[in-house]
Amino acid sequence: LGLKGSGAIARRKRIEHHRQRTQQIVTASAQLIHQKGFHGTTLQDVAEQLDFTKAALYYYVHDKQDLLFRIHMQALEMALAAVESIAQSERTPPDKLAAFIDNQVRMIASHPDLFTVYFHEKAQLTAEHHEAVTQKERQIVHAIAEVIRDGVATGCFQQVDPTVAAFTIMGASSWVYRWYRPQGRHSIEEVSQILQTVLLSGLEKERGK
Amino acid sequence: LGLKGSGAIARRKRIEHHRQRTQQIVTASAQLIHQKGFHGTTLQDVAEQLDFTKAALYYYVHDKQDLLFRIHMQALEMALAAVESIAQSERTPPDKLAAFIDNQVRMIASHPDLFTVYFHEKAQLTAEHHEAVTQKERQIVHAIAEVIRDGVATGCFQQVDPTVAAFTIMGASSWVYRWYRPQGRHSIEEVSQILQTVLLSGLEKERGK
Repeated sequence: LGLKGSGAIARRKRIEHHRQRTQQIVTASAQLIHQKGFHGTTLQDVAEQLDFTKAALYYYVHDKQDLLFRIHMQALEMALAAVESIAQSERTPPDKLAAFIDNQVRMIASHPDLFTVYFHEKAQLTAEHHEAVTQKERQIVHAIAEVIRDGVATGCFQQVDPTVAAFTIMGASSWVYRWYRPQGRHSIEEVSQILQTVLLSGLEKERGK
Repeated sequence: LGLKGSGAIARRKRIEHHRQRTQQIVTASAQLIHQKGFHGTTLQDVAEQLDFTKAALYYYVHDKQDLLFRIHMQALEMALAAVESIAQSERTPPDKLAAFIDNQVRMIASHPDLFTVYFHEKAQLTAEHHEAVTQKERQIVHAIAEVIRDGVATGCFQQVDPTVAAFTIMGASSWVYRWYRPQGRHSIEEVSQILQTVLLSGLEKERGK
């Protein structure tokens, strides 16, 4: 390797290191904010939790508002990537919704701190961050509503307002953040199955009555 | 009226006045906590909002923790009273669930501050208050799950786990606190109807496929 090549490798390593550190900070602060609330958590708490100095922390995040925004964006980008990949896949509308419910339930159960902070602290974002977060939320709801609209148009779903139906599905599957506990009576597979059964047979058209 | 009678009336008036004042304080503080978060709100803010002195405020509530607990209990007692009255009524299980969904959606849409604070700030309660709130939540979910169990036993609903199905219904109908706006495209009647359609046909048994 020439000097130029090793410089590029070093730079890539630095970028990757920066990404990992930021990720660590987002994870630790989501955990703290989940426990103590946004106003109850200081950057000092986050630094102590990670054995960082506060100065080192400032190298990765601007301030507490920036941190809260990153938590929101991480949750929403994860959700949006999954929803878009499902929406663009070659599946029937019911299969897409089943995959969306399954993904939503598992994603929230695997990242309870991240999603609880997003669900609870959105009102604490700055106006600009709040707007960016709302945009992402709209993209997610829109993608699900389009799948439902498609299912209504092709006759697999009954006539319902696609947006309200999308919020119904989103609400039912997101609510697991409030009650699902991994050590509880139901596995996440069972929970996902029951949600899929109730929500999909609720949308599907062919009914005997 | 003798002295004794007018004393009783005066006492009743005092009690009623105390109840109204406490109610005013709970409503104003739910609004403030909704905007600024629990840690971001002080009793001083609540007093100023109501044109009370802080000393006058302390006559009605012990401290901020007491206030947060009262907000939670007011939301939960309202929800529990409705759920129990519906569960004990002479209706079929599907009609009971429809009434529950309709009540939940309207109740949350009419008291957005109260329910948002309950949904977001539960983790900020003291351990003792947290336990009391969890007890009330369990009573609500239990009452809904019993209606579903009854519907499964009598053959109107398909075989699903009643508790998970109760959380599905609770989640879908509670989620309106995040997205429903009275000035938006849908009336609360329409939203309630769509939720009832999707959730009830999802549970009901007779299906053509």
